[in-house]
This record gives sequence, structure tokens and C-alpha cells, in this order.
Amino acid sequence: MTPKQLYNQICKKQSFLCIGLDTDIKKIPKHLLGFKDPVFEFNKRIIDATKDLCVAYKPNIAFYESRGIDGWISLEKTIDYIPKDIFKIADAKRGDIGNTSKMYAQAFFEKMNFDAITLAPYMGSDSIKPFLEYKNKWSIILALTSNTGGLDFQLLVDENKNKLYQKIISVSKSWGDNIMYVIGATRAEILKDIRSIIPDHFLLVPGVGAQGGNLDAVVSNGMNKKCGLLINSSRSIIYASSNKNFDNDARLQALNIQKQMQNHLVKKNII
Amino acid sequence: MTPKQLYNQICKKQSFLCIGLDTDIKKIPKHLLGFKDPVFEFNKRIIDATKDLCVAYKPNIAFYESRGIDGWISLEKTIDYIPKDIFKIADAKRGDIGNTSKMYAQAFFEKMNFDAITLAPYMGSDSIKPFLEYKNKWSIILALTSNTGGLDFQLLVDENKNKLYQKIISVSKSWGDNIMYVIGATRAEILKDIRSIIPDHFLLVPGVGAQGGNLDAVVSNGMNKKCGLLINSSRSIIYASSNKNFDNDARLQALNIQKQMQNHLVKKNII
Repeated sequence: MTPKQLYNQICKKQSFLCIGLDTDIKKIPKHLLGFKDPVFEFNKRIIDATKDLCVAYKPNIAFYESRGIDGWISLEKTIDYIPKDIFKIADAKRGDIGNTSKMYAQAFFEKMNFDAITLAPYMGSDSIKPFLEYKNKWSIILALTSNTGGLDFQLLVDENKNKLYQKIISVSKSWGDNIMYVIGATRAEILKDIRSIIPDHFLLVPGVGAQGGNLDAVVSNGMNKKCGLLINSSRSIIYASSNKNFDNDARLQALNIQKQMQNHLVKKNII
Repeated sequence: MTPKQLYNQICKKQSFLCIGLDTDIKKIPKHLLGFKDPVFEFNKRIIDATKDLCVAYKPNIAFYESRGIDGWISLEKTIDYIPKDIFKIADAKRGDIGNTSKMYAQAFFEKMNFDAITLAPYMGSDSIKPFLEYKNKWSIILALTSNTGGLDFQLLVDENKNKLYQKIISVSKSWGDNIMYVIGATRAEILKDIRSIIPDHFLLVPGVGAQGGNLDAVVSNGMNKKCGLLINSSRSIIYASSNKNFDNDARLQALNIQKQMQNHLVKKNII
């Protein structure tokens, strides 16, 4: 997907919502457990109920990998089921030496038709470049994450007074055109600083909802003229309820966020 | 596996060799392609030919994941086939927020019976801790990697004159008892410094062989009284030849390294 196509989807749906498919077989409604593939059945209904309200889905690969072959089958079916005009992000946090990253790129960009993958930057340029070689596929590099451990190393200050996340962004932005960054919503106050380094890049912002991030603060500090934000919510949408109408309850949660997003897009003269 | 059991294996086999199973279906001997699962067939023969010469096997997960469900089947069969007294490392470079790392830990420590997994440290303590909760299972944290991109961020110097890899080691070593570190063999000159921070930890050292690392330099700077080293070689052993005797050729390569290791263990009075 090109940036223009993604922007067009945001304008059309009046939304920059990404829904995280962190589908845990222990948390899905009990009445689905009788199906042959309960995780896919759950995802299918969530997708059917929300696909007009979001521009991206983000399966969290760990939740599928934890179930081995069965999980991999659910993941492949889910990816094939998501409509073509919706941006598909593999939340995988991969990154390894060049010949190995090339294999991960094959897994997520060829074997499965993801549009983007989240990547850990610690191993540097050659761990990211094999992903960047795929035209119109996106590498979403971890910069500042929403978890408590994100503070352990990401804010370290170097000799030149740059924080580690700033260094990672300013170095890696030259590696290719098809890069986005992960910035946790719980760090919204830092978004202004990040926009001074990368005014135009898309940012994937997880942490709104269950992790406590604030949508207004993220938009106020991070939105640019082309929106430039994909805001992810996982648990607060997909586990809105566990009754027979869980999909409709998920829709209501997504609709609530979409309406807020619509307001922000209007205020910023994007739609 | 306990550290004592691992040490006993090293003494018994007079070897601290780890063989990397970076098994690429495009690189294995052509005569295996007629089998139902050529990758498993290759691994099986490599394991049969080398299991008395090494103390660990390290499947590189990307190579399996790139083949989707088929790859996952090959991986599960390979893990089940490796003898119980050999240390099994998932080279996966995972790491995510707590609830997600918990799922990866389930995948590699429960669904598959790995003894250890390689982890990326960028997301900090709560991305590693779910793995550390498994008794006698090991988290092998990336400190200093062997690739060229390893120089992009890992050697950054902070305000207190600590390099990033030093900071990561000195902070993370307090997180649990079951931690090892990845130190690339191409950085052997830095091993002395690392031993001043963690004299007793086991180090997984990839990069000897195809990547150009030097065994003598690694041993000279990194070996401790309990050996403390697992040295990995992948491509130079498993792809020693591609003819019908590829397994025997792999054995000869492994035997050559094991003999060198035996000499080092004798010189250091470990055996």
C-alpha cells in the first residue's frame, strides 16, 4: 500500500484506527470454542463488525505463535480474510542479521501478504534493510514503546545529549522511504519532539485504551497535515464483552473511537 | 537444563560447540528434496552426524517461519528429535510488552521444549521477565552482535561514559539468575571488558566460521573457569558440502572445531 492509498482510506473512513488482533484463545467467548478454528472464527466476526471503522488491523504474532501450527493456520486465514484496502500490520518485533531478516521478510511479506511489520532496531541497519527492499511494504521501527520497561534504555542520553530513541530515529530515517515508527501513546508528551525530527512519517501509536494512553494528547502532539497517525487499540475493542453479541459490542467501542477521530480530522481540516 | 548439567556436558563431550540449524530449503542437497519434509530430513542427518561433538543446537526460527505452516512442522519435529541432554536454543530475537512476551515464552518453552531463547533488549525489563519465570530455561539477551549494523547503536556512549551494550548488561543482569548474553565473535577484543562486568555468565558467541570470527581470540578473552562459552557455527558446518555425504562432511567440520575446543579446555585445566 502506498502512503497516498493509506491517506485516502483515512479520509474515506474518517478514521485512523488500527485494531489489534491480540486474539487469546483463553479470552474469546466460550460459545466459539465449538468451532474448528475458534481464533479465526473470533477474528472473522471482529473484522466483519469493524472493517468500515478502521484503516488497519494488527495481528500480534505472539498470540498465534503460542499455539504452534494451529496458531499459524489461524493467522494465515485471518490475513487472507482482511479486505484488500485495509492495511495489515504484523506486530512481530523481529530483527536479526541480514540473511536472517531476509527470511523474516519472506515470511511476512511473501508467504503472508502483510503490508507492514514492526521491527526492533537494536541490531542496526542490516537487520532492517531486507524488509525495506519490498516496494510499498512498510518497516515500522520501535522508537519509544508504551511499556514500563521502555524507560530502561530508550531514554538514555548520549555524549551529544541525544536520547537513544532520538538517535535511532535520526539515523534510521535515512535507510529508506518506506519506514514508520512505533511511539507508545503513554509517551504523548514526547511526540512534539519526535515530530521535530520526522514531521512527515507515519507513526503507529499503540497504548490507547487498556494501556492508558490518551487519544487527545496523541493527536494534539502528533498529527500532521496528512494525519500521519495510526492509533492502535486492541483489548479494549476486541474484548469489549464476552457474550453472544461480543462483535457488536466491539463495534460500539470502535465506533466511539472512530467518532472521536472524525472530530479530530475535521478540526485539523483533513476532511 | 541447569548450569551444572550444561557444564557437565561440556566436560563429557570436551566441546562447547553449538551448531546453528539455519536450514534453508534452497541450500540443502538436492537428493533430499524428494522426501516429504526435506528440511527435517536434513536436520535429522546433521544431528545424527554431529550430536556427539556439540553441546547445543540452535535452530534459527526465521528459516522455519519463512515456510509458514510447513516450516513450523519441520521445526517441531527437529526439536523433538534432538537428544534430551543437548541444550536447545531458539534463535528468535523476540521481545515485546509483558503480556505478549508471555505468549512468546509459551510458544518456545511450553509448546516447543526449547531450553533457551535469544531476546532483543530494547523494550526493557518487562519484555524479558516473562521468559525468566521459567525455572531452568534461559534468556539469552543480545548485547553485542556480530553484524555490521551492530555498530550503529550498540557502541553509543552515554553521559556516564558507558557504552550501550555495557549498560544493557549491567542493568539486565539483576533481572534474574537464568540469563546468558549474545556476544558476536567478530567483537572478540571487547570480551575482556564484558568479562569484567559478568565474569560468570555463559556467553553465546555466534560468528565463528562464515562470519569471520576467530575461535582462539574468543577463548583467550572470554573463557572462564566453568568454560562460560557456547560458540556457534552454522553455515560452515551444515553446508560443508552438498553431495550425498553432506552429513559426514558436516561431521568433519564439527570434529575439527571440537578438537580445537578440546585443546582449549585442556589448556585452561577445565578437563
